[in-house]
Amino acid sequence: MHRIVLSLIAILFAATSIYANESDPKPDITEFTLDNGLRLVVIPDRRAPVVTHMAWYKVGSADDPQGSSGLAHFFEHLMFKGTSNYPPGEFSSAVSAIGGQENAFTSWDYTAYYQKVSPSALPDMMKYEADRMQNLTVTEEVFLPERDVILEERSGRVDRSPGAILGEFSRAALHVNHPYSIPIIGWEHEIAKLKMEDALAFYKRWYQPWNVIVVVAGDVDPQETLKMAKETYGKLVATEEPIERKWTSSPRHVVAQTLEYKDERVTQPSWQRAFLVPSYTIAEEGEAEALDILSAIMGGSATSRFQQEIVLEQGLATSAGAYYQGSSRDMTSFGFYGTPRGDTKLEDLASAIEAQVDKLLEEGVSQEELDRAREAYLKTIIYSQDSQVTLARIFGSVLTIGGSVEDFTSWPERLRKVTVEDVNKVARKYLDRNRSITSRLLPKEG
Amino acid sequence: MHRIVLSLIAILFAATSIYANESDPKPDITEFTLDNGLRLVVIPDRRAPVVTHMAWYKVGSADDPQGSSGLAHFFEHLMFKGTSNYPPGEFSSAVSAIGGQENAFTSWDYTAYYQKVSPSALPDMMKYEADRMQNLTVTEEVFLPERDVILEERSGRVDRSPGAILGEFSRAALHVNHPYSIPIIGWEHEIAKLKMEDALAFYKRWYQPWNVIVVVAGDVDPQETLKMAKETYGKLVATEEPIERKWTSSPRHVVAQTLEYKDERVTQPSWQRAFLVPSYTIAEEGEAEALDILSAIMGGSATSRFQQEIVLEQGLATSAGAYYQGSSRDMTSFGFYGTPRGDTKLEDLASAIEAQVDKLLEEGVSQEELDRAREAYLKTIIYSQDSQVTLARIFGSVLTIGGSVEDFTSWPERLRKVTVEDVNKVARKYLDRNRSITSRLLPKEG
Repeated sequence: MHRIVLSLIAILFAATSIYANESDPKPDITEFTLDNGLRLVVIPDRRAPVVTHMAWYKVGSADDPQGSSGLAHFFEHLMFKGTSNYPPGEFSSAVSAIGGQENAFTSWDYTAYYQKVSPSALPDMMKYEADRMQNLTVTEEVFLPERDVILEERSGRVDRSPGAILGEFSRAALHVNHPYSIPIIGWEHEIAKLKMEDALAFYKRWYQPWNVIVVVAGDVDPQETLKMAKETYGKLVATEEPIERKWTSSPRHVVAQTLEYKDERVTQPSWQRAFLVPSYTIAEEGEAEALDILSAIMGGSATSRFQQEIVLEQGLATSAGAYYQGSSRDMTSFGFYGTPRGDTKLEDLASAIEAQVDKLLEEGVSQEELDRAREAYLKTIIYSQDSQVTLARIFGSVLTIGGSVEDFTSWPERLRKVTVEDVNKVARKYLDRNRSITSRLLPKEG
Repeated sequence: MHRIVLSLIAILFAATSIYANESDPKPDITEFTLDNGLRLVVIPDRRAPVVTHMAWYKVGSADDPQGSSGLAHFFEHLMFKGTSNYPPGEFSSAVSAIGGQENAFTSWDYTAYYQKVSPSALPDMMKYEADRMQNLTVTEEVFLPERDVILEERSGRVDRSPGAILGEFSRAALHVNHPYSIPIIGWEHEIAKLKMEDALAFYKRWYQPWNVIVVVAGDVDPQETLKMAKETYGKLVATEEPIERKWTSSPRHVVAQTLEYKDERVTQPSWQRAFLVPSYTIAEEGEAEALDILSAIMGGSATSRFQQEIVLEQGLATSAGAYYQGSSRDMTSFGFYGTPRGDTKLEDLASAIEAQVDKLLEEGVSQEELDRAREAYLKTIIYSQDSQVTLARIFGSVLTIGGSVEDFTSWPERLRKVTVEDVNKVARKYLDRNRSITSRLLPKEG
């Protein structure tokens, strides 16, 4: 289920528009912390009699023990396998019986579980969710077949996808000596060796009340929600002391790397270049916002430079864009990508993108361009804020990676403060070709 | 001191010639294991009244705890800092007072300490060496300044050497998800954070009698040497149980990677391509021997293909060669390299090397060529076997990475069994450009 996470950035932008105008009322978000350390965030959304209940664990694949990649993601499966109190399937049946939805997702930074149900079912959801935080039944009979399921899942997602195969190695190159170098689902040879004991130790270490943020968005009252949470989550007693997440970090990149993967299944070649940049969580003031605007100017919309110049004017690409994965707990990536049109050579498309980047570094961006990109960016947002699940996801992810509600609500204001100089400065600081990771996906010849 | 290790392969080859003719007497090597698990290997060498005494620890930089790279190498420094029984400098003074020599070296696989002295000093050497295995004095006053010394050492070796800077990233790419990806001396930002407590825990974990192989080469009697060892090393009691060294392993390479580093200090560009291949320790029968012969045919001597074709005939390179780092505990590298002559472009030299490799893969090698390369290889060996320290190093390294005395003494015979088919088979199996790591070192323009 982890692919969902990859589009979180888009979602994150998408939902921001609820605060895009400074005159708009801020949402009346309420935060609580229970005695056992569990945090509860209630986001009112009374448009419909629906509630989204999410449990966010501050543990993700970057916390996989060395050599045991895939363990965090493994819980996306195990958490649906029943507990000492409820048999496998009972929780899921309770959700589907009332027409609800449920899902789970894992990123490098977190693991989350959620249900979207009618408000009257919320106490039950909390009961089940709190229960499986501590009472999961994991036996060899459950664990070993699930490991095969996950290997098959990996095979389908990675081995059958040339782009994903290349992506794993590109990621490893960008995040050298950092746990973000590891695939969320795990390296195949390490998944195959995961042991039940490893899973149990991981569960005991991280599935603790002090490591959870429960987000409730919907047609609910904060105080009543708190009362429910106290009666369910509040009764949990931590069995381990809180610990700090410790990750290794990358040395400063000083080498340009190019990765090329050829596969007979590739029908559409593609080109990508990534740069290691700070995320919102760790960036110096204003830099992350400037990187966001920069990505919008270069490749974020129909009026972006790439779209105008490379796709429309030069006709070299069917698509070309830029991205900034700002929502991350540690160093992250800023990148450019493109897919050549027709017989265009990958090198020619790459040269066109490089020429645009060179021009950016030499001439910078204009005020007009910045304003237009920022407005387009905020407009895009307005049209995609309708989902309650999205709303809950935004707050869950922001809080889990170390941000605050205020960090998020003040974001549009901070975006408005970005100047031409800010954008040009981050471009020149971070977009150094001699420190970039380039990925080339090509069909295999003959 | 770890650079020494990089030339071990050459030394290893060099000393083999003592058994190059099957009719030669095998050396009368004696092995003992003390009750505490310490192994003792005695190699008679009565050419001069000299003895080389080496302590080989089965721990190296690949055993550095995650995020604490440089710890194994740190002991190369700490082990000279005095113990609870002898003040700093006393051991070294004892060596120099009798005109002896001492040194130490760290690789990914091991750490070793040695002295070359007169035979009468051997009991004292054992006394001091055994003492510092368990009684090292490590205080903040010793540790912190030494950390600065090591950072300065790193600065001199890596930061001031463009080739070394590129080499670190190339190595990380080749050994993705494996501890061989880590520099022996450590990543700068991790060395800077090493703590005395980490060093003490590492010392307690690995500096134990069961983790040591003592190699004594020289004008000594095996039984007398054993008696001395019992009276010194034999009195040590392990304070930790033996444990297995656990390393992560790389996923199978399926992506071609090119790394490029430009630095204004580069006066001589260079090109290198590495392939991940099995070492002698883990290779299937005959494969490592075939890889050795292959490297000799392609680039090991004056009659090699690269030398004849690229250096002499085409005049494209001042040097071009091939290497196989067979002496390693886990997956290792086979590679090609070259330095362009005069104004030759790096790409043109790369193309010439690639053309030679393509020809090899298409046409294979001939019996005549194999015989000539093998003989040249064995001859080179004969002229460089004179060092007692080298002899001791060979056995120390072979035994430390998991080989046996017999593995080593039978090596020339195994090399003689290599066939044309064996060589062609390993070439085609491992030298796949689409899974290689290419490094380009270039001067920085303008």
